[in-house]
Amino acid sequence: MNPAPLWIGGSFRPSADGLPGFRAFNPETGRPISGEYPTSGLRDLDTFLDAASGVAPALAAAPAESIARFLEGYASRIESRAVALSGLAYEETALPVRPRLFEVELPRTLKQLREGARIARSRNWREPVIDTGANLRTLRGPLGKPVVIFSPNNFPFAFNALSGSDFVSACVAQNPVLAKAHPGHPHVTEALADLAQEALAAAGLPPGSIQLCYGLDETAGFALVGDRRVGAVCFTGSRTAGLALKAHADSAGIPFFGEFSSTNPVFILPGALAERGEALASEIATSCLMGSGQFCTKPGLLVLPACPGALAWLETLTGLFASAPPATLLAAGVRDRFEAALARWERAGARRLGGGGPVTQAGFRVSPALFGVDARTFLANPGELETEAFGPAALVVHDIDPREMPSLAARLEGQLTATLLSDHAGADEALYTPLASVLRTRAGRLLNDKMPTGVLVSPAMNHGGPFPATNQPGFTSVGLPGAIRRLTMLYCYDNVRPDRLPDELGNPNPVPGLWRLVDGNWISGDID
Amino acid sequence: MNPAPLWIGGSFRPSADGLPGFRAFNPETGRPISGEYPTSGLRDLDTFLDAASGVAPALAAAPAESIARFLEGYASRIESRAVALSGLAYEETALPVRPRLFEVELPRTLKQLREGARIARSRNWREPVIDTGANLRTLRGPLGKPVVIFSPNNFPFAFNALSGSDFVSACVAQNPVLAKAHPGHPHVTEALADLAQEALAAAGLPPGSIQLCYGLDETAGFALVGDRRVGAVCFTGSRTAGLALKAHADSAGIPFFGEFSSTNPVFILPGALAERGEALASEIATSCLMGSGQFCTKPGLLVLPACPGALAWLETLTGLFASAPPATLLAAGVRDRFEAALARWERAGARRLGGGGPVTQAGFRVSPALFGVDARTFLANPGELETEAFGPAALVVHDIDPREMPSLAARLEGQLTATLLSDHAGADEALYTPLASVLRTRAGRLLNDKMPTGVLVSPAMNHGGPFPATNQPGFTSVGLPGAIRRLTMLYCYDNVRPDRLPDELGNPNPVPGLWRLVDGNWISGDID
Repeated sequence: MNPAPLWIGGSFRPSADGLPGFRAFNPETGRPISGEYPTSGLRDLDTFLDAASGVAPALAAAPAESIARFLEGYASRIESRAVALSGLAYEETALPVRPRLFEVELPRTLKQLREGARIARSRNWREPVIDTGANLRTLRGPLGKPVVIFSPNNFPFAFNALSGSDFVSACVAQNPVLAKAHPGHPHVTEALADLAQEALAAAGLPPGSIQLCYGLDETAGFALVGDRRVGAVCFTGSRTAGLALKAHADSAGIPFFGEFSSTNPVFILPGALAERGEALASEIATSCLMGSGQFCTKPGLLVLPACPGALAWLETLTGLFASAPPATLLAAGVRDRFEAALARWERAGARRLGGGGPVTQAGFRVSPALFGVDARTFLANPGELETEAFGPAALVVHDIDPREMPSLAARLEGQLTATLLSDHAGADEALYTPLASVLRTRAGRLLNDKMPTGVLVSPAMNHGGPFPATNQPGFTSVGLPGAIRRLTMLYCYDNVRPDRLPDELGNPNPVPGLWRLVDGNWISGDID
Repeated sequence: MNPAPLWIGGSFRPSADGLPGFRAFNPETGRPISGEYPTSGLRDLDTFLDAASGVAPALAAAPAESIARFLEGYASRIESRAVALSGLAYEETALPVRPRLFEVELPRTLKQLREGARIARSRNWREPVIDTGANLRTLRGPLGKPVVIFSPNNFPFAFNALSGSDFVSACVAQNPVLAKAHPGHPHVTEALADLAQEALAAAGLPPGSIQLCYGLDETAGFALVGDRRVGAVCFTGSRTAGLALKAHADSAGIPFFGEFSSTNPVFILPGALAERGEALASEIATSCLMGSGQFCTKPGLLVLPACPGALAWLETLTGLFASAPPATLLAAGVRDRFEAALARWERAGARRLGGGGPVTQAGFRVSPALFGVDARTFLANPGELETEAFGPAALVVHDIDPREMPSLAARLEGQLTATLLSDHAGADEALYTPLASVLRTRAGRLLNDKMPTGVLVSPAMNHGGPFPATNQPGFTSVGLPGAIRRLTMLYCYDNVRPDRLPDELGNPNPVPGLWRLVDGNWISGDID
C-alpha cells in the first residue's frame, strides 16, 4: 500500500522524496496501526516553500471575511465529524474519548477556531495605532512568508498543527501554514486535512494556503526552519528537539516561538495544609495523573513545608499515587523518556515514596509514582531534579522551613506556571508575599488555590514563561489575540496618502468593535 | 593617568580586570582625545551581573512615581548641561553642534526621557488584560533580570546606551540596565553617567539599577550576552558584530533585539520625476548626505525608472553629490568600512557616477559619491550590491521599466524603511499599488513623498523591520510604549485573590488614563 499523500502545493500528492515512511502506534496495544505515512526530505521541502511563498501575497490580500468563513466552516466540519475524529484520536493516543477528547478537547478546539473567526472579522489582532498629527499610522500585518508549525504529541486537536492555537494564529494573521503533523497521530491529522481543504475551498481562499507533511528527516527539518523563505516557526515539544530546531532558525534570523518544558512548581503553605490538606492531596493527585500526566502544565514539583501534619499528608498523597491504575502513555519514546527522567531523579538523590510497580498489560503503560527529596538534597542538585518527567509522576521537595521557600523558588528554572496554596484565614499571608514576589518573574502564570492543568482560551491567558519554559517570555501561545501577535510584523505608514491606507488606518472606523489607539486613547469610533 | 572609572555595583570604581584601555578620537583631526577608558573582562562582568541580579527585585518593586521622577530629573540635568554635552559630543563625533546635536538630537533625547516618565506614571506600558468571568488577569512586568544595551556610534545622545530608546524602555519596565558605551563617545557617556547617578539618588532608586562599562574584550562580550542572569539584549550597530553577539544570546535562550543594517530603498516613479524632479534630487541628496550619511534610515538605494528625463535627472543628482564638501565620518573604522563597501559595489558592477575625489584634509574624511548600476546587473548580484555603505554615498539602480519595479523589490533584503515617490495627478497610481504591496512585507515603515531619515518619537512609529534590518519584525525600537514591550514579560494572575493583585489589575482603576482591556473592551474607568 502506498503511504498517505502529503497536502502540498494545493493538492493531495505523494511525497517526491521516496524516503521510508512510518506508522502510528496504538498505545493501548503497543502495536502499529495500519496505514503508512511519508517522511519528507529536501525535495518536498522545496515544493512546500515555493508554494507557500507563491500564495503569501494572495492570502495577505484576502478579505477578513474569507478568513473568518474558513475558520468557521472548518470548525463546523470538525464538529460534524466529532465522534469519528474522537475515535481516531483515541486509537492513536489512548486518551479517553469521554470526557477528554469528545467533551473537553474538541469543544475547546472549536471554541478557539471560532474565536479566531471572530477576531479576524473584528480585525482587533491588527492593533492599529494612529498619530493623526504626524500622519503616522501603524498596524500589524502578515509576515508575507509561511509559518512553520511543529505540534506536540499530547493534544491531537487543541494543539494540532492543523487545528491548534498556533494554526489559528497563523490563519488569522493571513500567513500561509506549513504544518508538521506529530508522528504520534497522523490519522487524526490526515482527517483534519481533508476537512481543512474543503473549508478552504468553500471560503474561496487560495489552495496552498495550508500545507501538511507528516515526517521530516533531520536534514530537511533543520533546512526548513533555517530557510529564509520562512517567516516564523512555532514549536511545542521536547527541549532537546526544540533547542536543536531553534538553533537553525536563530542562525537564519527567523523568529522562533518555542515551548520546551516546565515542572510547574506548587508551593503548599502550612495554613493550607492544616485547613484543607485532604482536599489538596486529592486535587493534586488528580491534576498530576489526568491525561496520564501528559500536560505541559502538570504540577510536577510539589514543595511541602516542614510543619505538623506534613508527613501524614505526604503518606496520603503517596497512597493516591500508589493506588492509581497503570497509565497509558502516548508512545514508546514517551514511556522511555519518562522512565529515564525518574531514574535521573533517583540518581540525584530522590526516593520513590510509592507507586511505580511492575506493569503486566501490553502497550505503553507505566505505574504512577510519587518521589520525594529533602530540600537540602534538592538545592544541591536542582538541575537534575528539575528534569521534567512527562507522565504520571511528581517530585515532592519536603522538609523545608516555609520561610526558606523563596530562596528555593529563586533557584528554579523558568516555568509556565507556579501555584501557591494558602489558607483562607490569613495564617499564610506573611509567607505568601515574599514567595509570590520571587515566583512572579519565574513563571508566566501564577495561580492561587487551584491546579495549573486547565489552560483557558481567554484574551487574559498567558501560556508562556521565561526560558526554558519558552524562549520569549513576552508572548503567550494560547489566548487570542495575544497568540496572533507572535506571527505578525508591524506595518508602519508614514505620510501615506489616505486612499492608499488599509481601511483599518483610515479616519472612518471600518468595523464596529475595532479598537484603535488614536493619539493616546483607545477608541472604537471614527477619527474626527 | 588612570583610566576613567566604571559605574558598577552602585558606585564609580576602577576596572578589576587590568586590561589595556582605549581612547576616543577626534574625527576632525584623527587624533586621540586625552583621557583613557577601561576595557572590561570577565571579572568586571561578574560584578556587573551580580549587582544587577541583586538589585532587580527592589527595582521591580519601586513605585512608578520614582521611575518617572528619575527620568524627569535626569532629563532636566541633561538639559541644564546641554551646551557642554553638545560640545563634548562634537569633539568625539564631529557631528555639528548646531543644528544637529544641540537643536535636534538633544531635544529629541529629552522628549523621549520625558515621554518615558509619562508612560511610567500612566502605567500604560503594562497593557492590562482582564477576563472578569474567569478571574484571569494579565499585565506586562519587569523581566526580573538586567537588560544589556549595546548602542551605536551615530547618535551620542538619542541612541546612547545611557539615554536612548533602549535605555528609556528598560527603565520604564523597571529592569536593571547594563549599558555598554560606544567606544566612539566615552566622554559624553561618562558625563551622562554622572547625571544619571545623581538623578537615580534623587529619585530614591537603588544604586546599582544602572551600570556602565566602556569596552568589553571579545570573551567578556560574548560571555555577557550568553549569561542566563541576563534578561534581554538590545543591540544597534554593524551586522557582523550584531550577529556574533546574537548567536551567543540565542544559544542561552536570551531574547535579543538587534538592528543590523538597511539600505532603505527609494522608488522614484515616472510621474514624480516629471512633476518635481529637481526638488526630489535636492531632497534625496540632502537626506543622503546629512550627518555625513550616517543614519540607519539613510536612503542608500535609489531606483530610477527608464523614462524621459531620467538621465538628465541622474546628472543633476550626481552634480549634487559631486559638489558636496568632504564629510567627516565617526571613526577610522567607519571610514574604512565605507570605502570597502564602495569597492564591493564596484566589483559587483556598479560605476562611480561622480564624487569621491581625493581628500587632503586631516581626520576621518571622505568625499560624497554617487554610484549607478543598471537593473540587469543589480538583479544578477543583489546581495553584493545591497551592502550598506554607512556614509555619504548612494547607489542608483537605473534603466528599469517601472512595471518591473515590484520584481526588483521582491529581491531585496528586509529593510527598516521603503519610500515611494509618486506624482499628485494620479499618473503613477497604477504603478504604485503593486509596488507598495510587495514592499509592505519587506520594510517596517513605508513612506510616501518624504525622506526616511526622520524617525519621529511617536506611539505610531515603527523603527524595525524584517531580517536583516532587525531579527524581530513584530517590534519597534523607537516609539513608546511599543519599544518597552520588548523588555517585558507577561505576568498572568489566575484566580489570585483581589488583595494580592497588582493595583493595575484590581477592579478599581488606580490611575486616571490607564487603559485596560476588560472583557474585550478598552476602558479607562473602574470595573463594575
